[in-house]
Amino acid sequence: MAADPFSVRTAGPGDAPVIARLLHDFNTEFATPTPGAEVLAARPARLLAAPLTTALLVRHPAVGVAPVTRRPNVRYDGPVALLDELHVVPHLRGRGIGGSLMRRPLADAVEEGVSPVEINVDEGDTDARRFHARHGFTDIEPDSGDRALYLHREIGD
Amino acid sequence: MAADPFSVRTAGPGDAPVIARLLHDFNTEFATPTPGAEVLAARPARLLAAPLTTALLVRHPAVGVAPVTRRPNVRYDGPVALLDELHVVPHLRGRGIGGSLMRRPLADAVEEGVSPVEINVDEGDTDARRFHARHGFTDIEPDSGDRALYLHREIGD
Repeated sequence: MAADPFSVRTAGPGDAPVIARLLHDFNTEFATPTPGAEVLAARPARLLAAPLTTALLVRHPAVGVAPVTRRPNVRYDGPVALLDELHVVPHLRGRGIGGSLMRRPLADAVEEGVSPVEINVDEGDTDARRFHARHGFTDIEPDSGDRALYLHREIGD
Repeated sequence: MAADPFSVRTAGPGDAPVIARLLHDFNTEFATPTPGAEVLAARPARLLAAPLTTALLVRHPAVGVAPVTRRPNVRYDGPVALLDELHVVPHLRGRGIGGSLMRRPLADAVEEGVSPVEINVDEGDTDARRFHARHGFTDIEPDSGDRALYLHREIGD
């Protein structure tokens, strides 16, 4: 694999406030309810403190963020990596930062025997789906040949 | 919530072999490639040893299994619970063991401030989807009103 144009680093505890700021800005941009950057700051702090979760970042202070969980799974010898988000600040989009944030967990997966890498996406988000398809992601389950859905149930709402 | 007819317990390290046997039997039943119960045994052992993952079981030795991961997530104050599988041995199906295995993480979620609980399912698996819908799961994202897909990329195949 060619060297990536954007170097991707793993977040440290000091990155929690800037991750919260990025997430708050993305929520605002996409009209998602957001509790504000201060309330949000506790969440990346918990993410970075937990043993199986982290966030990948580009630049310092970060201009792109991708939280990743790596969990053991009974279907695979290696862990499974789940990308919960992938965001780049608006004025730096279209330059390949998102691609670098995507390639890093894929490269790590090869190195560490991880399989598969997972993402959940809205069916109607065609830009995201095109981006994911370019990076080799599919919604077809290999065993069944069937499409795979992401289900959730909110609690206490 | 009424008391559950089947008491659900959290697996301990000694349960790894029986979980492996259950998973091997399920793979065989559904014609999924399986490396055999001995090779599989290492996987539940890793799952039970890891900090954010465990398995819920019914009876001893177990006749039903549901591996669960609880990860911090930047979209929620509490952790997010992911049910990776939910299986009951064939001769005890239809008695509510699966429902008990499903209600336990939902009850835990209420108690521990977890939201949401997540499941990935094949679109064509109508029995499973009906079961999930009965327990309040949906494939519609509340923010977008859109359907949510589960994407994956296998590595090193």
